[in-house]
Amino acid sequence: MGTVETDAARRFADIVGATGLLTGDQIGPDYAHDEALVGTPVLPGYVARPENAEQVAALLAAATAAKIPVTARGSGTGMSAGARPCPGGLLISFERMAAILEIDTENQVAVVQPGVTLADLDAATADVGLMYTVFPGELSASVGGNVGTNAGGMRAVKYGVTRHNVLGLQAALPTGELIRTGGRITKLSTGYDLTQLIIGSEGTCALATEVTVRLYPRLGHSATLLAPFPDLPAIMRAVPSVVRSGVDPVILEYVDKLTLAAISYSQNLNLGIPDEVRETAEAHLVVGVENRDRERLDGDVTMLGELLGELGALDVYVLEGNSAHALIEAREKAFWTAKAAGAHDVIDVVVPRASMHRFLTAAQELAQGAGAGVVGCGHAGDGNVHLAVFCADDEVRHRLLHDIFAAAMDLGGAISGEHGLGRVKTEHFLELEDPAKIALMRRIKEAFDPAGILNPGVLL
Amino acid sequence: MGTVETDAARRFADIVGATGLLTGDQIGPDYAHDEALVGTPVLPGYVARPENAEQVAALLAAATAAKIPVTARGSGTGMSAGARPCPGGLLISFERMAAILEIDTENQVAVVQPGVTLADLDAATADVGLMYTVFPGELSASVGGNVGTNAGGMRAVKYGVTRHNVLGLQAALPTGELIRTGGRITKLSTGYDLTQLIIGSEGTCALATEVTVRLYPRLGHSATLLAPFPDLPAIMRAVPSVVRSGVDPVILEYVDKLTLAAISYSQNLNLGIPDEVRETAEAHLVVGVENRDRERLDGDVTMLGELLGELGALDVYVLEGNSAHALIEAREKAFWTAKAAGAHDVIDVVVPRASMHRFLTAAQELAQGAGAGVVGCGHAGDGNVHLAVFCADDEVRHRLLHDIFAAAMDLGGAISGEHGLGRVKTEHFLELEDPAKIALMRRIKEAFDPAGILNPGVLL
Repeated sequence: MGTVETDAARRFADIVGATGLLTGDQIGPDYAHDEALVGTPVLPGYVARPENAEQVAALLAAATAAKIPVTARGSGTGMSAGARPCPGGLLISFERMAAILEIDTENQVAVVQPGVTLADLDAATADVGLMYTVFPGELSASVGGNVGTNAGGMRAVKYGVTRHNVLGLQAALPTGELIRTGGRITKLSTGYDLTQLIIGSEGTCALATEVTVRLYPRLGHSATLLAPFPDLPAIMRAVPSVVRSGVDPVILEYVDKLTLAAISYSQNLNLGIPDEVRETAEAHLVVGVENRDRERLDGDVTMLGELLGELGALDVYVLEGNSAHALIEAREKAFWTAKAAGAHDVIDVVVPRASMHRFLTAAQELAQGAGAGVVGCGHAGDGNVHLAVFCADDEVRHRLLHDIFAAAMDLGGAISGEHGLGRVKTEHFLELEDPAKIALMRRIKEAFDPAGILNPGVLL
Repeated sequence: MGTVETDAARRFADIVGATGLLTGDQIGPDYAHDEALVGTPVLPGYVARPENAEQVAALLAAATAAKIPVTARGSGTGMSAGARPCPGGLLISFERMAAILEIDTENQVAVVQPGVTLADLDAATADVGLMYTVFPGELSASVGGNVGTNAGGMRAVKYGVTRHNVLGLQAALPTGELIRTGGRITKLSTGYDLTQLIIGSEGTCALATEVTVRLYPRLGHSATLLAPFPDLPAIMRAVPSVVRSGVDPVILEYVDKLTLAAISYSQNLNLGIPDEVRETAEAHLVVGVENRDRERLDGDVTMLGELLGELGALDVYVLEGNSAHALIEAREKAFWTAKAAGAHDVIDVVVPRASMHRFLTAAQELAQGAGAGVVGCGHAGDGNVHLAVFCADDEVRHRLLHDIFAAAMDLGGAISGEHGLGRVKTEHFLELEDPAKIALMRRIKEAFDPAGILNPGVLL
């Protein structure tokens, strides 16, 4: 270890204490990666585990002074390597900042430290009949990580994504200041919206040190409908009608035949679909509804069942408690199924929901042309398509993804709906995005981070 | 007119055509102001009325080259003089860019030019059973102006404010480029959220040239409840319970006794409240609910009536069609009532909704101490308090507002919930806001507008 590194380590240890800093062999392999399938793990030079916001700000000031790149890490459940550190860089892990500071039932907000997991927040809010509604599938994810990527998940079709549910932040700037943005309020017209600018910036502008999230009443009754359709276009045509019906679905997912087969098999899921329907159905729509009133829920289920029949469903199954739960969980674990099946990448393109079929057709054609395979499922209500990509050759896959992303953008969509760009999709973003926007984003980044220490190589 | 001005006029006329540009005596007095009560009108040097986005971008490039300050104007209904021009500056009026370009029922969005009014958009969406849900009280307001101030209004308690309902923009940068941000999608994790940064920036970063807004199903049934309460604290205690009940009110307003008297008198409104209740009630809660189903609506009304009774309402009146409409309209026109009554300013502080009573008490005390009066009403569900301020002396009023804003900020609130800072509240903002945030916002502004031409003196 050279002198420069030793100096930096000493400065970092002064801030977080000797037990708060890991260097060299103390750094375990988990800190070298998140859940991205692409690329190889990278060990950072330092792992700092601050205990409060002031320590985070001081770490950033020290890193700016020493020009050491900094990457933030929540639970490491990201899908795009946004938390993969720079070689020799500083990784700030929020594992010691995982407290729920307050659940304010009057204003219906929770104030949490960034390291708190969604599972812990869900348990704590359940106690008072409220709910943080962002469920990106992995409940061990941290709120701070969700802020970084603007995480979404299944319930976004009703409740929106992280961006719509974070009302305020305390954040550390790379220049060492702590600022507070927003608050326990939903209306605000007092200066630029720094909250929204930091959300989704993947740790490149500022690091959240405290997050104020919006809570909703936890509704007591829910039901899940599974509707097999003869083909994907029929599903895609049905989706806008379900949204427009006013039934306000909380879940609206499509699962293609292969993916349902794979998750059913790997999760040992028996949904009780008769063989002849299973064989005819090319894809399935999953619709979740919830209500505070049992009778109203039953009314919604009946209405939805009729509507789905009119829209061409082969049949409609109202799943009972256990199998509904199992299906949703299996759907959420589709990533792990894809990973186990040997997928080389998983992407989460977003397009206008009425263009999903055109996009999927284009993606299938591009994959065939490249000798590759894509199978998937997705948040149909939001046009957010998750595709497992099977294509071993790095160069061919890069070109294929480039073409798939370009096809999505041609339809008015974007590269990522909820996973973020991270280290694995930034190159595509820089190739495909309008240069005027890239240049503007670079100037905005510089406004936050003049020394360029925050997550270089990610997003810009 | 000097040579420089003549050159500029020639350049602007080259862009928008001779009939698109007004100078000198051609500029009518309407272009000199919006609806802010404070300050005096200012005539701009030039009024340009572009017909398309390319003309807007070219105007900005020309203004940047000539270092001429630029102010955007929609319908001029703003409350904070954000559309009051700079002396000798260029006013870009969007009156010729007022088309509804598309109503996309499949993706439930409308794509509009910035000059379109809320009234026109409401009529066009009603035809297809959809609705743009942002109603800031003045339906002649333009969508572009609403983007500038992040306008809110009564329905925000259910549907959110402009920020939550604008999905994408085309915007002209001061450097002359046109960019597109967001789109017909609600999920997006692909770079910084420029849409949200431009919304609420009051024409200081970029000018929207096309706006994609989210539409919701227009629900067929609605009801309005009026509940007199013995005092304001009782109302303030009731509000969180109504929100938490799960009945999802679309309107949740409080109106104090004096304001109800004033709007009833000036709008000739007879709500049928018995004299003894009217004399006892210090304040009133107005709750609006809506549903796609008549029976469910009736159920909600019954439940709400019982709940409000439990929460201390003196009585609950379910207003029939006409008087409900009249009350809501009168409440929306409260500003005009305040103006007619001689109010010297109208402010729209926002605080966490559970802190509204503490804020109002503090504001009353401060006003009394200054020999001034404040009366008001507000969006109780959002903690957004509208106060008419009666205080003729400019200096005393400035100090009073400073103290009222500081009291709101101490409670975790902010100077403006929906009106913006404009020319009339920016000074307070600069005095009261964290200098680190001001400095950061200045750097962000510079990233967009290196020559500083966009609305100087507003927001920063």
